[in-house]
Amino acid sequence: MGGLSSWRDGPSKRAIEDFVARVCGADGPQPVPVEERLAVFDNDGTLWCEKPMPIQLDFILRRLVAMVEAEPELRERQPWKAAHERDHGWLSAVMAEHYAGDDTKVKILAGGVLAAHGGISVQDFEALSDDFLRSAQHPTLGRGYLECAYAPMVELLAFLAANGFSNYIASGGGRDFMRPITQEVYGIPRERVIGSSTALEYTSDDRGGTVIRKAEADYLDDGPEKPVRIWSRTGRRPLLGAGNSNGDIPMLDFSRHHDKPFLRLLVLHDDEEREFAYTSGAEQALDRAASEGWTVVSVKDDWASVF
Amino acid sequence: MGGLSSWRDGPSKRAIEDFVARVCGADGPQPVPVEERLAVFDNDGTLWCEKPMPIQLDFILRRLVAMVEAEPELRERQPWKAAHERDHGWLSAVMAEHYAGDDTKVKILAGGVLAAHGGISVQDFEALSDDFLRSAQHPTLGRGYLECAYAPMVELLAFLAANGFSNYIASGGGRDFMRPITQEVYGIPRERVIGSSTALEYTSDDRGGTVIRKAEADYLDDGPEKPVRIWSRTGRRPLLGAGNSNGDIPMLDFSRHHDKPFLRLLVLHDDEEREFAYTSGAEQALDRAASEGWTVVSVKDDWASVF
Repeated sequence: MGGLSSWRDGPSKRAIEDFVARVCGADGPQPVPVEERLAVFDNDGTLWCEKPMPIQLDFILRRLVAMVEAEPELRERQPWKAAHERDHGWLSAVMAEHYAGDDTKVKILAGGVLAAHGGISVQDFEALSDDFLRSAQHPTLGRGYLECAYAPMVELLAFLAANGFSNYIASGGGRDFMRPITQEVYGIPRERVIGSSTALEYTSDDRGGTVIRKAEADYLDDGPEKPVRIWSRTGRRPLLGAGNSNGDIPMLDFSRHHDKPFLRLLVLHDDEEREFAYTSGAEQALDRAASEGWTVVSVKDDWASVF
Repeated sequence: MGGLSSWRDGPSKRAIEDFVARVCGADGPQPVPVEERLAVFDNDGTLWCEKPMPIQLDFILRRLVAMVEAEPELRERQPWKAAHERDHGWLSAVMAEHYAGDDTKVKILAGGVLAAHGGISVQDFEALSDDFLRSAQHPTLGRGYLECAYAPMVELLAFLAANGFSNYIASGGGRDFMRPITQEVYGIPRERVIGSSTALEYTSDDRGGTVIRKAEADYLDDGPEKPVRIWSRTGRRPLLGAGNSNGDIPMLDFSRHHDKPFLRLLVLHDDEEREFAYTSGAEQALDRAASEGWTVVSVKDDWASVF
C-alpha cells in the first residue's frame, strides 16, 4: 500500500521499504502489532524547510515588528531592534554564538519570543499561526510556507500510515504553532504533535474558561527532552525516528529495539540547487549516523523531487 | 450502536443518549465531525473505585513496606513508619489536614511517594504497576482491583467509542501507573491516558537509552491543571467531561461549547450497600453541578449494577 515514487531507487528507499516489510511480517514469524507501530519525525529541516531561518522565527520576527509599530519605544531594545531593522547580522550572531557556547543573545531573543505571544489564549495564538502559515511566502524559494514541506517525506508519512503506523511530530518548534496545519500538510492530527511550549494557565469564566499562554517557557522539546516527551505522550518507544540535526540524536538513539525492526533516518541537506546545502548543527548527528548505521537520506541523491 | 443496559432509565441515561444523538446529528443540521468528538474522564472515583483509599495509594504503601524490609532504619521515618505499622490514622490525617488547609503531612507523604519509585526506568515501573493491578485484591469489596472499574462507566466508554468519540483519561493519579491496564479495562489506549507524573530524564546508552523516573514531582494533574493538560495533549476542548470531585471542576467547566452539544457528568457516591457513600472532597463540585446544570449520576439510582 502507498508508494515512494518521489524517492529515487537507492539504499535509503530500500532501507525504508525493507523496514516496513519487516514490520508488516514479510520475513519474520509475525508482524509487529499495529498499536506498536510508532514513527516520530522532527519537523524543521526534516519534514519542511528550515533555511534561511526556521519558519516559526519568521512568524515571531513579524510579530516583533508589529509590536514596535504599536509601541515605538521597543525599537531601542533587542530583539525588537533587530526585527525592526531587519538586522540579520544580529540574528545570525544568536545562532553562531549559541553554537560557540555563549547563550547571552539566545536569552535576549527568548525574552522577545515569549513576550511576542504571551497573555493570549491558545485559540487566538492558533488563529495567528494558521493565518501566517497560509499566507506568508518563503523568502527565497518562491512558494508559500505550506508548500515548503518535503514531498518525499509527506509521501513517506502516507506510506507508513497506509501500513498501520501512527506518525507523530516531535519537534523543537512550537507545538501550538504547528497544530493548525499538520493534518492538512502531513496527515498528522493535532493530538500527535509533540513540540515545545510556553507555560500555559487555565483561567475560568462562565463560558468554559480559557487556556492562556504565559510569557514564560515551559520546556524546549529538543535533545534529551525528545525521548522524554515522546514517552510522556505515547507511552511507547518508536520503531522509526527521523531527524536532521544534533538535537535529534537522543530521539534517534531512543528509536532502537532488541526484538523488533527499527529504522533511523537522518536527512542530509546537500542540494544547493533545489534547496539548501548545510551541515552546521548536524555535525555530531552525521558522526553518529556513520558509527551507528543510521540511514542518511541525501536530498540530492535520494529525492527525485524536493517539494 | 452500543448500549447502556447497566444504566437504569432516568434523567442521567436520557441526558447521555440525547447528547450522543445530538453529536451524531440527530436533530441538528449536521453531526459534529468525528475528530472533534473528545470525551475526558477522571479515573479515581469516576471510572473505578477510590475507597477506602485510592488504588495507587495501596500500591505505594506496599512499596514503602517493602522498602522498610530492605532498609529497617526507614521504620522510624514518615511515611514509612505509617506504612509499616499500617497506621491508617496517620494516613487519614493527611487528607483531613489537607482539606483543612494544612499540607505539612501531604509534603511528608509526597516525599515518600516520590522516593518509592524514584530512579527506576518507566518500563520497570510499569511492570511493577501491571503486576500489582493484576494481582492485588480490593481490601473490602472482595474482588481484584481490575474488577473495581464501574461497569456502567465502562459501558459508557464503549457507547461513546461506538459513536465516534475519542475517550481520554484525565486523572490526578499517575499516568504511568494506569497505562498498562487502560486498554484492557477501559478500551483506552496508552496514548490517551493523561495523568500526574514525576519528572523524567533520558539517559543514553548503546542499547537505545532509557527514560528514568526522578524522585521529584513534575506536575499534579488536578484542578486547573486538568484543562491545561487536556489542551496540551489533544489540542481540543472536550465535548464531554466526567468527574466526581472538586479537582474535576475546571475540567468540567472547560467541557463547554457555545456552538456544539456538550455534557458534564458528576458521579455521586451515594450507595453504601453496593459501593461507598461519601461527598467529602466533592462539596463544591456538587454545588457547581446544581448551579451549572451538570448531570449528577447517582450510583444508587442510575446504575443497575455497579461492577
